[in-house]
Amino acid sequence: MKNYQNDFTPDWQQTQPDEESFRSIFKWGAKDTFKNPSQGFLNVIKQALGLSNTDFQMPINLGNKWVENSQETTINSEDISKFETIVGQENIFFDTYSRLKYSTGKSMEDILKLRQEKIKDIPDVILHPRSREDIKKIVRLCDEKRIPLHVYGGGSSVTLGLDCPKGGITLVMSTHMNKMIAFNETNQTITVEAGMMGPAYENLLNQAPEKLHAAGRYTGGHFPQSFEFSSVGGWIVTLGSGQASSYYGDAYDLVISQEYITPAGSFKTHDFPATATGPKVNDIMKGSEGCFGVLISVTMKIFPYHPETSKAFTFMFPGFEAAINAAQQISQAGFGMPSILRLSDPEETDIAMKMYGLEGGGLDKLMRFKNLNPGSRCLLMGQTDGEKSFSKNVFKQIKKVGKSNQGLYLTGYPMKKWRKGRFSDPYMRDALNDFGVLIDTLEASVTWDHLKDLYHGVRGYIKKHPHTICMTHASHFYAQGTNLYFIFIIKMEDIDEFRAFQRGIIQKIEENHGSLSHHHGVGRMMTPWMEKHLGKNQMDTLRAIKKHFDPNNIMNPGGLGL
Amino acid sequence: MKNYQNDFTPDWQQTQPDEESFRSIFKWGAKDTFKNPSQGFLNVIKQALGLSNTDFQMPINLGNKWVENSQETTINSEDISKFETIVGQENIFFDTYSRLKYSTGKSMEDILKLRQEKIKDIPDVILHPRSREDIKKIVRLCDEKRIPLHVYGGGSSVTLGLDCPKGGITLVMSTHMNKMIAFNETNQTITVEAGMMGPAYENLLNQAPEKLHAAGRYTGGHFPQSFEFSSVGGWIVTLGSGQASSYYGDAYDLVISQEYITPAGSFKTHDFPATATGPKVNDIMKGSEGCFGVLISVTMKIFPYHPETSKAFTFMFPGFEAAINAAQQISQAGFGMPSILRLSDPEETDIAMKMYGLEGGGLDKLMRFKNLNPGSRCLLMGQTDGEKSFSKNVFKQIKKVGKSNQGLYLTGYPMKKWRKGRFSDPYMRDALNDFGVLIDTLEASVTWDHLKDLYHGVRGYIKKHPHTICMTHASHFYAQGTNLYFIFIIKMEDIDEFRAFQRGIIQKIEENHGSLSHHHGVGRMMTPWMEKHLGKNQMDTLRAIKKHFDPNNIMNPGGLGL
Repeated sequence: MKNYQNDFTPDWQQTQPDEESFRSIFKWGAKDTFKNPSQGFLNVIKQALGLSNTDFQMPINLGNKWVENSQETTINSEDISKFETIVGQENIFFDTYSRLKYSTGKSMEDILKLRQEKIKDIPDVILHPRSREDIKKIVRLCDEKRIPLHVYGGGSSVTLGLDCPKGGITLVMSTHMNKMIAFNETNQTITVEAGMMGPAYENLLNQAPEKLHAAGRYTGGHFPQSFEFSSVGGWIVTLGSGQASSYYGDAYDLVISQEYITPAGSFKTHDFPATATGPKVNDIMKGSEGCFGVLISVTMKIFPYHPETSKAFTFMFPGFEAAINAAQQISQAGFGMPSILRLSDPEETDIAMKMYGLEGGGLDKLMRFKNLNPGSRCLLMGQTDGEKSFSKNVFKQIKKVGKSNQGLYLTGYPMKKWRKGRFSDPYMRDALNDFGVLIDTLEASVTWDHLKDLYHGVRGYIKKHPHTICMTHASHFYAQGTNLYFIFIIKMEDIDEFRAFQRGIIQKIEENHGSLSHHHGVGRMMTPWMEKHLGKNQMDTLRAIKKHFDPNNIMNPGGLGL
Repeated sequence: MKNYQNDFTPDWQQTQPDEESFRSIFKWGAKDTFKNPSQGFLNVIKQALGLSNTDFQMPINLGNKWVENSQETTINSEDISKFETIVGQENIFFDTYSRLKYSTGKSMEDILKLRQEKIKDIPDVILHPRSREDIKKIVRLCDEKRIPLHVYGGGSSVTLGLDCPKGGITLVMSTHMNKMIAFNETNQTITVEAGMMGPAYENLLNQAPEKLHAAGRYTGGHFPQSFEFSSVGGWIVTLGSGQASSYYGDAYDLVISQEYITPAGSFKTHDFPATATGPKVNDIMKGSEGCFGVLISVTMKIFPYHPETSKAFTFMFPGFEAAINAAQQISQAGFGMPSILRLSDPEETDIAMKMYGLEGGGLDKLMRFKNLNPGSRCLLMGQTDGEKSFSKNVFKQIKKVGKSNQGLYLTGYPMKKWRKGRFSDPYMRDALNDFGVLIDTLEASVTWDHLKDLYHGVRGYIKKHPHTICMTHASHFYAQGTNLYFIFIIKMEDIDEFRAFQRGIIQKIEENHGSLSHHHGVGRMMTPWMEKHLGKNQMDTLRAIKKHFDPNNIMNPGGLGL
C-alpha cells in the first residue's frame, strides 16, 4: 500500500519568483504570499490521486527561467512612434516579458503554458493609457491601421480572455485608469475608472467618511475570489459575480451607467435608476469582453456597510437531496437572501471536513451519531448581511429552513474557517502545480429542474478519469436556480491532454442544460460552443452589434466567438 | 363668486357605448363600468379650474357616432388573400372600426382624436394570428412585400405606441395568442404566450393548486394601473412597471427568457437564472416596442402568493422635504423594500384628503393640531408584501423611519382607500372628459439628487398655465432614485393646443434631468426627444440592431425614433 497517511512535507516553493521569470507571471496573487495545502488536504490528494511521497519529492516545471526577448514586434516603427506620442515613452513596452505578462490569465491552461515556457498569442505592444483622451486616440489609430486592440484589467481571467492570437496592442487599465471620478452619497453611487482594482475600490467605500467626507460607510458588495487581483471594469465586461452576490447581485446588477470608447464613437449612458426609453444600450455593453469598445468608467450601486450585522451559519445535511431542498427553499421563500450561500456535495464536504480539521473531532462524532456520515453528508454554509433587522431575520428563517430539512446546525464556525481562506485558497494551486498536480474549476448556472442532470453529467465525466478528485458546490443562488462549481484535481502534465479533458467538461456542461458560464465569461475557451449554445440567430445579433461598434474588427478580434 | 361648492351633480354619462361607436373605442376599461368623480373631487376641480355648474351642464364630444367604413385598404387584393390564407377568413378584418380600434391607445390625445371623430394613422388590415406558425408566415410575407407590421397587446399605451402612420398590418395578440405554455413550480416560472392579459395571468397563478395542480399559490407581482387591460407581452416590450414594483421589480426584472419572431429569424433565449456568455440578447429585446420582431412567448419569474401578509401603512409629513427624506431612507436602508410606496406632493395630498373624505374630520383636526397643514403636508403611503417575517419586519422598519422624519402615522386606512381605486380611478377620466375637462399624466424616473429640479421644473411649467391642477407623486422606488408622476387636469378642447402644452411637459422633463419615460415606453410621443436624450451614438446602436433584425424596416416603422 502506498504511503500517503504520514507527515511527510514536500519542499514547498516559498521563494519570491524572479522579477523577469515565467513564474512571476503565472504565480497567483502577491509575489511574497504563499499558501501550502494542509497535511490533511495533501493526504486526501495523495490518496485520491494514488500518489506517494515520491511524487512530491521533485518539483517540476517551476518556470523560474527568465522570459527572454525573443519575440519581434510586427507593428511598424512609424505606427509605434505614433502610439509613443500618444501615451508617452514611459507608457509603451515591447519587451517579451511585458507582452507575455499582459496576455496571460489564471486558467490552468495559461499556467501550464508558462510552466512549459511556451510563448503564444501575445500582443506586439503594451500601452498604459493615462486618460480617456489617450484611449480615444489609441482606438482611432488602431481602427485606422487595423491593429487589434485588447484590454487588460486585473488579469484574473480563467477563460483565456487575454489571449491575443492576432497580436496587436494590449491596453493595461490598472496602471493609470484607476481613479475615482465621483462619489454620490445622495444617490448611493460611485463612479470610478475601469482600471480601479477591487481592494482600492472597497477600501474607498469602507473608509468613505475619512476619504470622501461621507456621512456613512459603504461597500461595493462585490467579492469574487479574485477580488484582490481584478478590476471593477473587468467585473462588468466579463459579467462576474462576487461570493456575496446572492444578496448584492451579480456585477450585471450593480452597474448604473457606463462610459465607452468604441471605433464607432464614445458615449456615456444615463444614471437613471430605471428607464423605459427602449432597449438599454447600457445593458448591451455588459459582458462585451472588449469586443465592442473600451470601458472607460462606470457608475456603480453602493450599499451601507454593516460588517457588524454579518451572521455566519453552517448546516450538515444527511445527503445532497436534503441540502438542495433547503437551499432551494431559502432561495424561493422570499424572506430575503443571505449574501453567501454555499452547498457542498458529499465529496467536497468530506474534503472540507478534513481541511477545516473537523474530521474525527467531537463534532464529527455527533454527526455520525446523527447518521450524518462521510460519503453522503453535505455542508451548507453561508452568511447573512445588510441592515441589522434584515440580516437577523434572514438568519433566523434560514435556521428554520435548515432544521426542517434534517439539517444539523453546526454554528458559524466552519463558515468562518472558509471565510479565512476565501481569497487565499488559490495560492495553494501553485504549490500543488509544482508537483504536477493540476487544479481547475468550471462553473455553470442551471435551473433547479436540471441541477441533478448537470451535476451527474459533469461529475460522471470527471470521475471516469481514474484518480481524480471532483469537488462540487453550488453557490450564487436565485429563485430560479443556482450555479454549480466543479473543482477537479488531477495529475497530468501534457497540455493537450489536459486541454482535451477540460474541454470535455465544457461539452458535458453544454449537453446537460448548464450555461457555458455563470460568471467566468467566454474568453477564448467557450467560443467553440457559443454558436451551438446561443443559436445562430442570437450569435448573428451579437455579430451585428459588434459590426456596428467595430466595423474593422479590431476590438479583441475573435473574442466571444464573433 | 362662482358657484362651485354645492351639490350639483352633472349628468354623468353612464350608458354603455354603442358597439360600433367612437366612444366604444376610447372609453376606459369594461363597457359597462363607470366611475364618477366624488362630489369632493368635483368641487376641487371646479374651484381649481375656475368652472361653474354651467360648465357641467352640457356634455361635449361624446363620440357616440358610429365609425363608418370610410377608409380604403391600400394593400392589394392578392396580398390580402395571402394573409387570409394564413390566418383564416374569420381572423382578418378590413373595416374602419376594427382598424381604428386596434390602433388607438389610451393617451389623452388618442381620446381627444376619437371624441372629435378623427381617423388617422390606422392600419389597413387587422389580423388575429392563431399560432407562432401564423406569425412566422405573416412576418415573412410582410417582409417580402414591404408591408408595415405592428403588434397590439392590450391597447393601453399612453404614448401613442399603436399609431400606424404608414398603414400596414396590425396583429392582435390577445385573441388567440393568450395561452399558458408551461408552468414550472420547481423553477418558480411560468411560460405564457405574449397576448395573455393581466387578470388571466394573475388568476392562473393565484389559483395554481386548482388550475395547475401546483403545491402552492403564486403571484406575478405585476400590477400596473392598466393591469386589467394590458398583456404580459405588452408589459415587456414597453418596459412597464407595476404598482408593486419596488418589491417585485419592473417588467424588465421579471423576464427570464423570451421567444421572438423577427424578419431576420426566430429564437428563444435560455432560461438560466444568470449567465455570463456575453451581452444578453434576452435583455436587448426588452423595450423593443415591436420594432425588432414579434414577442411570441415569455418565461416569467413568479412569487409565492401571500395576500395575508400585506400590511398597509400611511404617514403624513409636515412637508415634501421630510416625506422625501423618509422615502429615500426607506429605499436606501437595505431592510428590504415595501411593494408599494407612494409619496404625494402637497397638492396631491390635499386633493387626496378630499377624495378619501378625510378633510375636516377628526384625523384632519389632529393633523392640523400637529402642524400638518394643507398646502404643505404630504402623504406617504404604501404596503409591504412577501414572506410573513419579511413583510412584518419591513413594515416595522418603515414605521421607525416615518416617525424619525416627523411623520404622523395614520394607520393603513388611507392606503386601503387608495387600493380600492387603484384599477378603477381611470374610469373617472371619461366622465370628466365628457365636460371638456382633460386629465393626463406624464412620468419620469430621476436620481435623488435631481428630484427637486425635476419636480419644480415640470410643476412650474404646468402651473404657469392658469386654472390647472398639477398633482405629483413619487412611486417606484430604488436606492438610486424614484419615478415622479405628474397628473394634470385642465380645461381644453383643441387637440393642437393640448398637444403643445403636453409636449412642453416632456421638454421640461428632458431639461430637468428626468428620463423621458420610466415605465410608459417611447411610443410615438417621445420619439422627437430620443436622439437628444440618448445621444447619437446610443441611437445609432439601436438603429444598427433594428437594421439587423428588420433590414426592410417593416416592424413598427418609425417606432422608438429609429
